[in-house]
Amino acid sequence: MAAAHFEVVGIGNAIVDVIATADEAFLEAHGMTKGAMMLVDEARANAIYEAMGATVTTSGGSAGNTIAGLASFGARAAYIGKVRDDVFGQAFRHDITALGVHFPTPSAVDGAATACCLILVTGDSERTMNTYLGACVTLGPDDVDEALVRDSQIVYLEGYLYDEPLAKQAFARSAEIAHSAGRRVALTLSDPFCVERHRADFLNLIDGHIDILFANEREAAMLFENDDRERWYARLRAMTQLAIVTRSAAGSVIVAPHEEIEIAAAPVDRVVDTTGAGDLYAAGFLYGLTRNAPLRKCGQLGSLAAAEVISHFGARPQRSLRELAQLMIHSF
Amino acid sequence: MAAAHFEVVGIGNAIVDVIATADEAFLEAHGMTKGAMMLVDEARANAIYEAMGATVTTSGGSAGNTIAGLASFGARAAYIGKVRDDVFGQAFRHDITALGVHFPTPSAVDGAATACCLILVTGDSERTMNTYLGACVTLGPDDVDEALVRDSQIVYLEGYLYDEPLAKQAFARSAEIAHSAGRRVALTLSDPFCVERHRADFLNLIDGHIDILFANEREAAMLFENDDRERWYARLRAMTQLAIVTRSAAGSVIVAPHEEIEIAAAPVDRVVDTTGAGDLYAAGFLYGLTRNAPLRKCGQLGSLAAAEVISHFGARPQRSLRELAQLMIHSF
Repeated sequence: MAAAHFEVVGIGNAIVDVIATADEAFLEAHGMTKGAMMLVDEARANAIYEAMGATVTTSGGSAGNTIAGLASFGARAAYIGKVRDDVFGQAFRHDITALGVHFPTPSAVDGAATACCLILVTGDSERTMNTYLGACVTLGPDDVDEALVRDSQIVYLEGYLYDEPLAKQAFARSAEIAHSAGRRVALTLSDPFCVERHRADFLNLIDGHIDILFANEREAAMLFENDDRERWYARLRAMTQLAIVTRSAAGSVIVAPHEEIEIAAAPVDRVVDTTGAGDLYAAGFLYGLTRNAPLRKCGQLGSLAAAEVISHFGARPQRSLRELAQLMIHSF
Repeated sequence: MAAAHFEVVGIGNAIVDVIATADEAFLEAHGMTKGAMMLVDEARANAIYEAMGATVTTSGGSAGNTIAGLASFGARAAYIGKVRDDVFGQAFRHDITALGVHFPTPSAVDGAATACCLILVTGDSERTMNTYLGACVTLGPDDVDEALVRDSQIVYLEGYLYDEPLAKQAFARSAEIAHSAGRRVALTLSDPFCVERHRADFLNLIDGHIDILFANEREAAMLFENDDRERWYARLRAMTQLAIVTRSAAGSVIVAPHEEIEIAAAPVDRVVDTTGAGDLYAAGFLYGLTRNAPLRKCGQLGSLAAAEVISHFGARPQRSLRELAQLMIHSF
């Protein structure tokens, strides 16, 4: 097998995040479930935007955040996702390519606007997300660049792609190409309600096609319909090569073939906004994995990246993860 | 004199900030002076944007930041400034009105785009600004709502308005209206190079028309062409009712008629981005002043607001300054 040029190619919904603080009453008044991602149409997105507070805008998208994190560590990374050629689409493209990420997907020149996610951050730093998918719904199998997927050690997919039929086809096609080229396929489950919507599909998919799985505790509980972590680990071990269950402040557990490895969360002065914690954990973990680091080290790199991203508004790193990782190495 | 409905009306360049980290070599390669604000045309703004790293976008503008800070403290505040009816202009309007600020200036429906400021934050947390003024250059005396200025305790003006002839007329007209209504006029000097460009004008203006002046040390040195703080204080006392010289980590000095009051900077865990420090100091100070707080307390409120804004990217507060101020009161 030829060496891959890219360490990871991510495929996901290309989204610009628009972030504001809100109180619990706001979530309730607008029928939102705290901590969840809800799909909204353009009219509802506009209504929420009108009502929400002063905003900070930054590129987002689950796999997009992970790929941005990988690039910040210094990995060679690529991204496949669909924006329109509007202001948000130009900003998304600028931000990801400025990090050195290869982003070959052409912008749509007509149709729906670039996707946006209206994120409300409550006083407990929890985020509640309202996503207008816009141009993302046109991402399809033809957008999957076969040569690029073949030339990447790992293809990283987000569960959110299952919310749109064309994107789901893009997902399936990229997994097939990767495996036929001897590459590994990683998946993040994205959101407990996304898991609920697609549980049977996800179980089939993970069992047959996913090598590396990322899930948080709520997603794992929703997937297996129980709260028994030992049972999750047994199922995950049977279905995947490697699974990682993230547990917020309690750290994470790496479910490897012959052991479970517990990883502590990295310390944070003040948690500001938990958006992107899982995405950046995956970035650190995959960065370590593609460099053949021991699994414990992979988990620590994940914790480090997650700690950086929850210390500020926005789901993309604001400090160089490469530099932070170097500081971490020196502190061992 | 009738009681004013608004505590402060701010008049300034309505700008959206686009922020990225950069190293010193980037500033040098693009001919920027660290810590300064440079006016750029559209072509240069585009070239800088292309070259700069991944961005965070948020509403800005010096007086806009101060007014946002006042609203976050719970003050009744208003703003006069010119945007276009484009994506950035809509975001600026959303962000300031979401804070409860009265913003009556209509958006331009043609002509130049909404102004943007490309801000590079270096590893020492210092910011270097490149401003494309766009629609701001059409702000003129007709945009000054006479009834609004008469109905505000203080009109707050930014020195940057002197960079455009029409805006300078708007500045003069608002000061005249305020004084004829028995209100006070406050000015921030904005930037040392702005002071250098308009030194003689500023000296005449301050002497005859400014009641409350905000300046940092570099601006004061540029205004008076010397580094002797005792001489500054004497001149400032002769020219104004009240002047405040801010000194970054060294705190600030309030130059009052019969005394100088030294105020310590408020503690910050990690300084991330100094953009808006002076603007938010002015917000806290004016909030205290309009509530008839003792001058020392006004300075402490300024330090508190400045500490919040330098702890994250972006020049608008991300926590409720009203809540932070309540915590501060309890800690005395």
